[in-house]
Amino acid sequence: MRTLIALTTLAVLISPMIGRGESPTDSATPIADRYRADARRIVDAALAGNDAWRKMEELCDDIGPRLSGSPQLEKAIRWAADAMKRDGQENVRIEKVMVPHWVRGKESCTMLTPRSHEIAMLGLGGSVGTPPEGITAPVIVIHDDEELEARAAEVRGKIVLFNQAMPQYDPEKGSGYGTGVHYRVHGARKAAEHGAVACLARSATAVSLHTPHTGAMRYGDAKVKIPAAAVSLEDATFIARLRKRGVPVTVNLRMEARTFSDGESGNVIGELRGRTNPEEVVVIGGHIDSWDVGTGAHDDGGGCVMAMEAINVLRKLGLRPRRTIRVVLFTNEENGLAGGRAYAADHKNELANHVAAIESDSGVFRPKGYTIDCEDEAREGVAVKQMNDILSLLSSIGEMEASAGGSGADVGPMKSGGVVLMGHHVEGSTYFNYHHTHADTLDKVDPVELSQNVAMLATVAYILADMPGRIGDSR
Amino acid sequence: MRTLIALTTLAVLISPMIGRGESPTDSATPIADRYRADARRIVDAALAGNDAWRKMEELCDDIGPRLSGSPQLEKAIRWAADAMKRDGQENVRIEKVMVPHWVRGKESCTMLTPRSHEIAMLGLGGSVGTPPEGITAPVIVIHDDEELEARAAEVRGKIVLFNQAMPQYDPEKGSGYGTGVHYRVHGARKAAEHGAVACLARSATAVSLHTPHTGAMRYGDAKVKIPAAAVSLEDATFIARLRKRGVPVTVNLRMEARTFSDGESGNVIGELRGRTNPEEVVVIGGHIDSWDVGTGAHDDGGGCVMAMEAINVLRKLGLRPRRTIRVVLFTNEENGLAGGRAYAADHKNELANHVAAIESDSGVFRPKGYTIDCEDEAREGVAVKQMNDILSLLSSIGEMEASAGGSGADVGPMKSGGVVLMGHHVEGSTYFNYHHTHADTLDKVDPVELSQNVAMLATVAYILADMPGRIGDSR
Repeated sequence: MRTLIALTTLAVLISPMIGRGESPTDSATPIADRYRADARRIVDAALAGNDAWRKMEELCDDIGPRLSGSPQLEKAIRWAADAMKRDGQENVRIEKVMVPHWVRGKESCTMLTPRSHEIAMLGLGGSVGTPPEGITAPVIVIHDDEELEARAAEVRGKIVLFNQAMPQYDPEKGSGYGTGVHYRVHGARKAAEHGAVACLARSATAVSLHTPHTGAMRYGDAKVKIPAAAVSLEDATFIARLRKRGVPVTVNLRMEARTFSDGESGNVIGELRGRTNPEEVVVIGGHIDSWDVGTGAHDDGGGCVMAMEAINVLRKLGLRPRRTIRVVLFTNEENGLAGGRAYAADHKNELANHVAAIESDSGVFRPKGYTIDCEDEAREGVAVKQMNDILSLLSSIGEMEASAGGSGADVGPMKSGGVVLMGHHVEGSTYFNYHHTHADTLDKVDPVELSQNVAMLATVAYILADMPGRIGDSR
Repeated sequence: MRTLIALTTLAVLISPMIGRGESPTDSATPIADRYRADARRIVDAALAGNDAWRKMEELCDDIGPRLSGSPQLEKAIRWAADAMKRDGQENVRIEKVMVPHWVRGKESCTMLTPRSHEIAMLGLGGSVGTPPEGITAPVIVIHDDEELEARAAEVRGKIVLFNQAMPQYDPEKGSGYGTGVHYRVHGARKAAEHGAVACLARSATAVSLHTPHTGAMRYGDAKVKIPAAAVSLEDATFIARLRKRGVPVTVNLRMEARTFSDGESGNVIGELRGRTNPEEVVVIGGHIDSWDVGTGAHDDGGGCVMAMEAINVLRKLGLRPRRTIRVVLFTNEENGLAGGRAYAADHKNELANHVAAIESDSGVFRPKGYTIDCEDEAREGVAVKQMNDILSLLSSIGEMEASAGGSGADVGPMKSGGVVLMGHHVEGSTYFNYHHTHADTLDKVDPVELSQNVAMLATVAYILADMPGRIGDSR
């Protein structure tokens, strides 16, 4: 691998960076035909050997988890900037963003009756803590809003366990995460309205091996803030079975969780500058922050590294497109979205020149194409069609498809600026098994699939940045 | 369900227990033809409603984990005896067995360098503890015996991590557990031979969500006993990746583990006495002990409950076979096999009259038939053929097969007594994901599959106990 990369690097040194797709084809040629040779070069180079796995080791193994406000996140941000500088990327910089600073501290949830048992739990991001002795109360199991309303009178003084099951992954319907996550986000506020003293939410997953899933919660306009934690599927169903038989369940919940004043963080940016239209930008990226458990390998180390490595592959091949490809590694996606909001705000005058913004935040699995999201529906429709044309160049990697659909949380704030947003789409059957857990670690990433994702992203970003018209233009 | 069971009970009260299979067919009739009507009644009754799920809740949820030497195991033993008495079983008794008494205590394994990280671990059953301050040492990663020999000089003073991967489940080759578990059992002894100060073994599993797997280890003739723990697949591979890049890894291992003097325990026995040949016995059972994590739902609460409920279904139907069906719930399978050895020793004079001994210790999944194991190969061959005939009666449940193969650890000591041993065979793709972990809990058991297993075991036990000739007789 090393030899091959060295030769490629040599080729870059010998030949000046040259543009592709100028001739003999002209702007009327279908995109796929125009870029067939380039796409093959990019895919071959990415699959033959790249630096993505090494970057994943440095980010996930060496630095580890990186929650907003932590020294580890700032270390990761400096690492990403340094790595892009080492790769020779241009305009590498960190754009300052203030982020929330929530710290978990020690925590536990212990069943006291009917028998002593340590519940597998993770406090939810943003939750308040408990008094040092914890909160001890009977548990009431609630499945949904309807049951909460019906049993509102029973809730006062109790710990509410929301036992909403997340459905098994379905290839047609997707992950069911929306259903699974509702009470993690809103449970504490809803339970507190009826006088609950704490909130437990069944982890948003359909698969568990004693594996609690953390994530953000929101108090919204809650008058009283009660502590909130996720418990494992095993423990949620255990308590629910006991209560179904009428067995009283009492638990003690202890959380040192605390929110400090906002900390300084930043979005990391690096560019492959455009050859002829550098002011026009294709954003590619993911989020550099993660939860404080696991190492954020799928969520979203992979998304960051794919983007970093996509422009690295292009640079090594000497492929400089007309427009700029800008890697943006957003900070604070997990518990605030401060990075995504700041990027859209700080760059609002440039958004008209943002041709597209691609986010990869669904893990590193077999690549499947892109979902496209644009305020202008006609533009979105054209973009889907053009993207399907582009993706036909990647059939050697696997079956690919473009379709209308959501993109990514961090690029979302650019939507109102008219930007064509895209979600980097991968096979999704296991992502939510690892999501926000101790198990989101590098062993879950397949190095071959990582390279395939680099290949797909590099090819698509290059074409979007180089094609004569903008993606979504109907001419 | 309750109504249906009540009606069935009523039927038992009205009709005296009657024998089946006497006429109009005679002993020359193929077994399946003779028992077709009985098999249908048994299967229908078991699937229509039974008490197995309730028993699982009482054993796993209410009592919980039950390691040898613990008060919980003795509670489970009394519960099982009481439950069988309540069901009206005969000769219910607890046969005394002395068992090892190992206690885990508090434990942790903390990575100190290259970064602070809590390793997901479980001490191994039988291991000695560490000094209170733990053992702090560099980690050397070893894959197999060959590498241990080749790098013997590097081992002294280090903590050896055996990073042997267990293969993914293969429908043809099975679980690969034998490969996965080798260094859990023997690693400490082998590492100590070369001066290691502690042993870590990658958990014996192919699937992990931050899930360490405990289990028994043995010092054998080791001159020095070093502490031994299992670490999660995630942490084993993390450390291995670091070491592969030459990064020094130091951990602190703390274990309070201690072995006390043997405690008193017992095998639980209950019978459906034989109609005409009560001295001839078909043993059915599992092991009542479990590890001290999870609740031993698959390993082996399910095996115990299936057996208890199998004779309960037969009794409620008024089906009393010629021979005795004896439920034996063995103690101390997990870390000693004292129960299995004691049963064979205490009953050695009756073994000639043990027609068969069935153990279910592979979890509660879709039932698939039986494996048969007998010292007399000719007898084994005949038994396999006859069992396939019997299993043809269960096609409404699913595809069933009998084949030669291992039975169960607890019935193993009866093999030299000439007993036809049988393993209750179930679909095995996920058993070792849960095995010996916090995740072996009741949510992993499907109530319908539990009933199907009760139906299969009840039908087979009844026919083995009632058929004119003994299973394996060639006439």
